[in-house]
Amino acid sequence: MNFCSHCGAKTVLAIPDGDDRERHVCSSCDTIHYLNPKIITGCLPFMGDQVLLCKRAIEPRYGLWTLPAGFMENGETVEQGAARESWEEARIKLNDLQLYQVFSLPHISQVYFFYLAEITQPDFGPGPESLEVKLCHLDDIPWDELAFTVVESTLRYFIEDRKTGHFPVRSQTLEAMRRPG
Amino acid sequence: MNFCSHCGAKTVLAIPDGDDRERHVCSSCDTIHYLNPKIITGCLPFMGDQVLLCKRAIEPRYGLWTLPAGFMENGETVEQGAARESWEEARIKLNDLQLYQVFSLPHISQVYFFYLAEITQPDFGPGPESLEVKLCHLDDIPWDELAFTVVESTLRYFIEDRKTGHFPVRSQTLEAMRRPG
Ligand SMILES: [Zn+2]
Ligand SMILES: [Zn+2]
Repeated sequence: MNFCSHCGAKTVLAIPDGDDRERHVCSSCDTIHYLNPKIITGCLPFMGDQVLLCKRAIEPRYGLWTLPAGFMENGETVEQGAARESWEEARIKLNDLQLYQVFSLPHISQVYFFYLAEITQPDFGPGPESLEVKLCHLDDIPWDELAFTVVESTLRYFIEDRKTGHFPVRSQTLEAMRRPG
Repeated sequence: MNFCSHCGAKTVLAIPDGDDRERHVCSSCDTIHYLNPKIITGCLPFMGDQVLLCKRAIEPRYGLWTLPAGFMENGETVEQGAARESWEEARIKLNDLQLYQVFSLPHISQVYFFYLAEITQPDFGPGPESLEVKLCHLDDIPWDELAFTVVESTLRYFIEDRKTGHFPVRSQTLEAMRRPG
């Protein structure tokens, strides 16, 4: 951030009174511009022992498989965002979303939500951000071609939890991937 | 938003290619400035049949009682934010946070998290944003002097859930309060 979005003057980094960390503060109108984590919300759509996966038509991770998810918008609920993204990316209508996984990714200041959503009408198809959308048997998940660690982790929990029939909500942290060596 | 935080030129409202809603777009450098919901994260600290409440020393809702909570910062996890706010507002160290309530407040584009946190060391006191911090018996909660609906709702769930000893994670919506008449 270089300029004040309110008045257009230059911003400076400074610790405001009563605060304990540097913020972008306007040198003219004194507005403090806070930077906050972003929410990404999506679904794990399933039908029996199949899950719905989308092949990405956009960067990053073009051509890899993902669950429908995207940035939450102002004015919607987390559930509405997850259902909206499922429609936009996979042209599927999902209801009865059940909170399932929450991931903090502090290295990129993101928080992911995934909701479990049973597919009652298997009508779907690629939206503009997907090359292909398919129901994938849990034995056939393309583990080496998944787009994001949060997607892999959510699918692994789903496979484990199906064994007990109990799908607890988890809130956890995914650190930056460290490459071996 | 009036000016581009990147280059300082004027922004205009326009629907970017491939998007379906108006965004603040820079008239000079074409940066798209997205507005996203903010996360507020906090704790329900409890010890036996008492909960920890903070009397607010700041607006809004100066002088009313609340649970320790505040805006999540970049670079932290949701849990770290909840523990940080508990330290800042109530000078209490909390560990073993367990996700409890998630509230969407779409009318103000906020998402609240409350974590259950058992108090093991009842060392606490008011931080700069609190007038007073106290352990409050569940029979004595000042229902008419609570600062926020999310706080009231979280406390009511806690009282209900203690009857069964089961504390399920809930994800739900709180709409804008409508005044009677
Ligand atoms: Zn300014
Ligand atoms: Zn610009």
